[in-house]
Amino acid sequence: MRISDLGEFGLVELVQDWTRQSIRASEPDPSAVYRTVVDNGDDGAAVTFVRAGVTELYTTDTMVDGVHFTSETTPWRDLGWKAIASNVSDVAAMGGTAALALITLGLPADTRVDDVKELYAGMTEICCEFGARVIGGDMVRSPVGFVTVALTGIATGKPMVRTTARPGHLVGLTGSVGGSAGGLRAMLEKEAVSGSAADQLVMTHRRPRPHVPEGQILVANGIDSAMDVSDGLADDLAKLCSASGVAANIWAEKVPAHPALQAVFPNDWLDLALYGGEDYVLLFTAQPEVMSAVMGLLPDGAAVIGEITDGTPGTVTVLEPDGTTRLRAGAGWDHFG
Amino acid sequence: MRISDLGEFGLVELVQDWTRQSIRASEPDPSAVYRTVVDNGDDGAAVTFVRAGVTELYTTDTMVDGVHFTSETTPWRDLGWKAIASNVSDVAAMGGTAALALITLGLPADTRVDDVKELYAGMTEICCEFGARVIGGDMVRSPVGFVTVALTGIATGKPMVRTTARPGHLVGLTGSVGGSAGGLRAMLEKEAVSGSAADQLVMTHRRPRPHVPEGQILVANGIDSAMDVSDGLADDLAKLCSASGVAANIWAEKVPAHPALQAVFPNDWLDLALYGGEDYVLLFTAQPEVMSAVMGLLPDGAAVIGEITDGTPGTVTVLEPDGTTRLRAGAGWDHFG
Repeated sequence: MRISDLGEFGLVELVQDWTRQSIRASEPDPSAVYRTVVDNGDDGAAVTFVRAGVTELYTTDTMVDGVHFTSETTPWRDLGWKAIASNVSDVAAMGGTAALALITLGLPADTRVDDVKELYAGMTEICCEFGARVIGGDMVRSPVGFVTVALTGIATGKPMVRTTARPGHLVGLTGSVGGSAGGLRAMLEKEAVSGSAADQLVMTHRRPRPHVPEGQILVANGIDSAMDVSDGLADDLAKLCSASGVAANIWAEKVPAHPALQAVFPNDWLDLALYGGEDYVLLFTAQPEVMSAVMGLLPDGAAVIGEITDGTPGTVTVLEPDGTTRLRAGAGWDHFG
Repeated sequence: MRISDLGEFGLVELVQDWTRQSIRASEPDPSAVYRTVVDNGDDGAAVTFVRAGVTELYTTDTMVDGVHFTSETTPWRDLGWKAIASNVSDVAAMGGTAALALITLGLPADTRVDDVKELYAGMTEICCEFGARVIGGDMVRSPVGFVTVALTGIATGKPMVRTTARPGHLVGLTGSVGGSAGGLRAMLEKEAVSGSAADQLVMTHRRPRPHVPEGQILVANGIDSAMDVSDGLADDLAKLCSASGVAANIWAEKVPAHPALQAVFPNDWLDLALYGGEDYVLLFTAQPEVMSAVMGLLPDGAAVIGEITDGTPGTVTVLEPDGTTRLRAGAGWDHFG
């Protein structure tokens, strides 16, 4: 069945059913922070904050068919997971936990209802794991499919930001990088690479796990400078440097590449680790003694990968293992290039 | 200049400048409710609620090029206004005032930078008038243009909802309907209609004014059942009836058609008033004595237009001036039809 057969109102009812199931299954008890007074299905939703001093976070992220994903490389259920994951990652980067999600779907009229159901199943999975709740949204006809998620979070401390990196700080990562870009490339070049290492990379691309617990560890231990790695390590570090008015060196041999990356891409693994996107680990900076203490608390895979300097603001220099250097300013993945 | 010449990061910087101007110009003092601790430009934004018991509203709405608007009928500046207006209207319908906006733009790479500037100028205008602030968003390349706004509001009383209409209630409107649909039709049939009456309708289509003050009057006077009219009076009333498990009669001769509508569309004005969309007035229900008191407080144009009954839930019957009736169940504007 296509959504044009069902019509908007039939689809809205189905989606509300799917959403309610996710709420029943997953809802953490937010009663110490807020209570829901109007749920999904009205002009809007409403929550009342039960105590003073709650800090709420707001973020939004969009995925467009053919630009950020294709149905070949991202099945519908994984698309649902990823669309929420990128937002949960932003909340994690500020030291928060996920709370309330508004889901906007732009869909061609010939979209299969079963595909939309899969999309919501993926959203439900990640909401259950990370304590998010869908409280509203919008569904519209669009010649090109897109998913926009707006997510709130609750900060458990002072939100970590991009503007507080200082010369003398070390640069840390909460986990390995390059796995997602490697997985995408493995799918696109599927004749060239296969096997369990490639499969691991594909799963890393399709089911990224936002580093919420890691973000909680950072903020609880005094880190105030962090962001998530979504557009690639070097480029995201350049953004953080730019926001803070500082520069950075990355020590290439310290970068924790995904464990399966070198086996699948023996020549390009370091480039994928440095410049690949959608890693959703956290990048943070701290004074050496704070960094050392925090590293002892983070899971395996976390690493100190460089240092903040007083060079030209926004400039990132990658120091290669062979002693050469290359400059990597804030070019980033240009969404309009 | 096209946005592909400027690149994502250049565009993001421009947009942040435009957004900051709007904040400086417009910000109401929200300090009794919240203070902003992280503003636009980081992984997300953050506000801290300074007192307990604040009720926050959440809504989102999307406009897709060629589906919800065209550049012929909606210039960029008006598009910016309308994209936020529809969300402010949802907040108004719950008895709230607008607060924080997340703006997502999906744009083809050949979009002119000046057009994006106009879009933000329209958003800035309505934010200034209605006290909203842009605190974040996302910009992505998309083969089809779209604007998604997620908006929070602050409720000033118990949020009004769609589920509390009861048999015996009268049905009220806070203002006239049909003007927006008439304006759109006047533009599409521009050879057939012109003159100042048609121009009034066009302005009503392009610059709808959300009924925030009216919503404040309703909630302050004990109304608990309301929604905004976005898909057409009859269809939206059917949705309200469906959510409340009741039916309704509309007295066609009582419906406040836009003052310019009959002059421009002498044959179809009532159909436009009953079934045209994007009016953004508020529809509400109340016991007769409450309705009577509230009507005395609302601006000219407000009217009592019908009654809630215990008929088949979700059924709306339009009673015509000539004594005939027609049934109008909850068909609505089917976004996927």
